[in-house]
Amino acid sequence: MHPFTRKSADSVAAWGETTLLSAIRRWLGDTAPTAPSGMGDDCAVLRTGARLVTVDPVIYGRHFDDKVSACDAGAKLLKRNLSDLAAMGGRPTGAVIALALDPRTRRDWLQEFYRGLAAVARRHQVPIIGGDIAEGPGINATLTLLGEPTGKRVLTRTGASLHDHIFVTGVLGGSLTSGHHHRFTPRLAEGAWLARQTAVRSMMDVSDGLAKDLKSLTPAGLFPAISADQLPCRRGVDVAAALTDGEDYELLFTLAARTDTKAFIRRWRSAFPRSRLTRLGRFERAGSHDENSLRLECYHGFEHLH
Amino acid sequence: MHPFTRKSADSVAAWGETTLLSAIRRWLGDTAPTAPSGMGDDCAVLRTGARLVTVDPVIYGRHFDDKVSACDAGAKLLKRNLSDLAAMGGRPTGAVIALALDPRTRRDWLQEFYRGLAAVARRHQVPIIGGDIAEGPGINATLTLLGEPTGKRVLTRTGASLHDHIFVTGVLGGSLTSGHHHRFTPRLAEGAWLARQTAVRSMMDVSDGLAKDLKSLTPAGLFPAISADQLPCRRGVDVAAALTDGEDYELLFTLAARTDTKAFIRRWRSAFPRSRLTRLGRFERAGSHDENSLRLECYHGFEHLH
Repeated sequence: MHPFTRKSADSVAAWGETTLLSAIRRWLGDTAPTAPSGMGDDCAVLRTGARLVTVDPVIYGRHFDDKVSACDAGAKLLKRNLSDLAAMGGRPTGAVIALALDPRTRRDWLQEFYRGLAAVARRHQVPIIGGDIAEGPGINATLTLLGEPTGKRVLTRTGASLHDHIFVTGVLGGSLTSGHHHRFTPRLAEGAWLARQTAVRSMMDVSDGLAKDLKSLTPAGLFPAISADQLPCRRGVDVAAALTDGEDYELLFTLAARTDTKAFIRRWRSAFPRSRLTRLGRFERAGSHDENSLRLECYHGFEHLH
Repeated sequence: MHPFTRKSADSVAAWGETTLLSAIRRWLGDTAPTAPSGMGDDCAVLRTGARLVTVDPVIYGRHFDDKVSACDAGAKLLKRNLSDLAAMGGRPTGAVIALALDPRTRRDWLQEFYRGLAAVARRHQVPIIGGDIAEGPGINATLTLLGEPTGKRVLTRTGASLHDHIFVTGVLGGSLTSGHHHRFTPRLAEGAWLARQTAVRSMMDVSDGLAKDLKSLTPAGLFPAISADQLPCRRGVDVAAALTDGEDYELLFTLAARTDTKAFIRRWRSAFPRSRLTRLGRFERAGSHDENSLRLECYHGFEHLH
């Protein structure tokens, strides 16, 4: 559905801020607690802690367009932030949403947007505790997600060493054409499980394409020796696309060199029988490049400003 | 300065995301800690708690325009969030910024924006711990501020009763024409002090105009009996403007009915000799309206969508 209308009676402007805010609370339903734990005061007061924080927007024309339903766009806003939290081994404790809207935005579009978001919030128990509404060009919904570690450890991007193994969940590439970019399930359960495995050294989510993102896990002086035939490409997707398309929202992590990888994979399969896990390769010394390894520096992932 | 350029060499697009991110960290300087406590991972990991959270954007054409320097626009982004935190009696522990930019945004404009923001962050000890950059129409910078209570108590908007006194800090109205909307100092010290005074019942910041905001402090069945000659109008500003202009960023609070207001004002003056404090009136029973009271329902504060 196109988000904007020429009929002012159908627009958010016809309602004004106060009525719109009441409607948003109604659309969010039980996912929106009351003040001071929720919307309605100068700040929201969190009941539980918030040691982890991440922020990501969805912007009309960038992260969604007329081909994506309002419901899916709203769901994506929360899910892409949950994916970042999953990558640290965290669980959500609350979210705030700043909405900047063209006054011609359709009310029924916005209703579906919030209903899609609320469904994800309910599934993952994320209270929507605050927000802001302002007039702006287009549609920009920015969500800040707060969370807590699920266990004793937070997994960061640093921690890998020479010969450590590189793993990725799911399949890569073709996210936009397959609809995966708004239909994916954030890997919160997998992230929490991985953070509990002491053999796991570092982790991140793949959002800008493996070629670009894997650089963040690669220690100085090393390179990731991974071969093209190991890549878990989505059906109908070639190696270049699997490396660069972006919006995979899968978990990329490293395992200590001396780990029994077969036993690790067995444990994974017993925990997540339906989630694919692939060993991509390992970190080797720079300069020791062999012919079977992908030259990731030749592939360019998603650049946010071009 | 106009934020956009036709010379692509001067634009953020010429740099791309990675170079731009490095530049932003440089501009933020010591206010931007390193990962995992700062930018550079999927989530930021907070060292201190975050029981309070608020979010507000600045949008080009709405909250600032070509008449406001980039430096002042960046400062305003953080200050308007700090004002919300002040209104709860909180202190800041960290902030994340989601930036949506037209690729033609001038790099030197953005540099001044971040320098202005960093100066405020340094003054109020707010680590900028994370963020996101995306392409979007215009300029939308959304800041989520995290904080902690300064004492045992968080002051909310609820808590006032019949005959409680209504106070406001500073002067009201003319914020845009006087430049106050970007030059103000968020009343963090005053907010923390007020939260420690047990006689203070409720508090908020005045951002949409007193006429609109005071409704949020008014208990059901009561009305605020305040007279026009008590209003602390900014020089050259009439009563209507003082009630409705918005962007005052002052603290509005209530004091228990039986408080010795003269002694309270003396204590205030000794703590904040340079900050004006005005008793506006008190809450009375609805229906007992007297002729000297302002009919606030006839004044309309700032509406965010119209």
